[in-house]
Amino acid sequence: MLDISHRVAVKSSPAATHQALTTIEGIAGWLTTDTRGDSSAGGAIELGFGSRGSVQLEVLEGEPPKRVAWEVVRGPAEWLGTRVAFELCQEGAATIVQFKHEGWKETSEFMQHCSTQWAAFLMSMKLLLETGCGSPFSPEVQTSNAGH
Amino acid sequence: MLDISHRVAVKSSPAATHQALTTIEGIAGWLTTDTRGDSSAGGAIELGFGSRGSVQLEVLEGEPPKRVAWEVVRGPAEWLGTRVAFELCQEGAATIVQFKHEGWKETSEFMQHCSTQWAAFLMSMKLLLETGCGSPFSPEVQTSNAGH
Repeated sequence: MLDISHRVAVKSSPAATHQALTTIEGIAGWLTTDTRGDSSAGGAIELGFGSRGSVQLEVLEGEPPKRVAWEVVRGPAEWLGTRVAFELCQEGAATIVQFKHEGWKETSEFMQHCSTQWAAFLMSMKLLLETGCGSPFSPEVQTSNAGH
Repeated sequence: MLDISHRVAVKSSPAATHQALTTIEGIAGWLTTDTRGDSSAGGAIELGFGSRGSVQLEVLEGEPPKRVAWEVVRGPAEWLGTRVAFELCQEGAATIVQFKHEGWKETSEFMQHCSTQWAAFLMSMKLLLETGCGSPFSPEVQTSNAGH
């Protein structure tokens, strides 16, 4: 595989799901509590993972509330230039989130690790939207409720 | 991608991790509480997911405590003949679990969904081994603590 691909159904509207992906408060609720920056198109978001390092993402033009995309501009070498995208589509009372992290140069153990972690974070986003409480990474405890 | 691939570090020994993958009680603690059958090599395991259906797996020859492999003999059409394998390797006080579900004929939305779900189940296995309490699917509630 040269891209990471996931799919999850969230009992929430596309608009609320889009909010969780495009506001600093939303992202901090499921990905990492240490989220900073400007989450509007053209802005840059900084995600901190404590001693594990940080990642800077450029927010690409999206198509609210259907598509959100980020490009990695700083972070682990394998991530540089890769793109993370979320496609949202309503299905009954749920929103289907189609996730891709593409542009990897080679399949590696690190890529497999990231695939697992992205899935755990997507489950955290689902929890946030369905229960009001996600399990983001927290630098204070160097882990999250979900164990990543 | 034509295989699903994940990697997770579990703070547990390879022997204990192997137990969670090769005993009915172990599998029921992280995958689905409705696990039945003979989990020894050559045996068949049945995994029930309530109204979502069930899957029958043939347990292939493994290499305890390093490798566990299953072949899908009954279940969703896309799963028939595919193989699920877990490679375990000790790294300090942790066991690295390298997971693969291979032999898919094509990339599909269902495959992406399964990739996300397998990651959630692997996180459930990690929780079981690290805290004594996983979040398997439970037919009674048609879901698990982890939200899958």
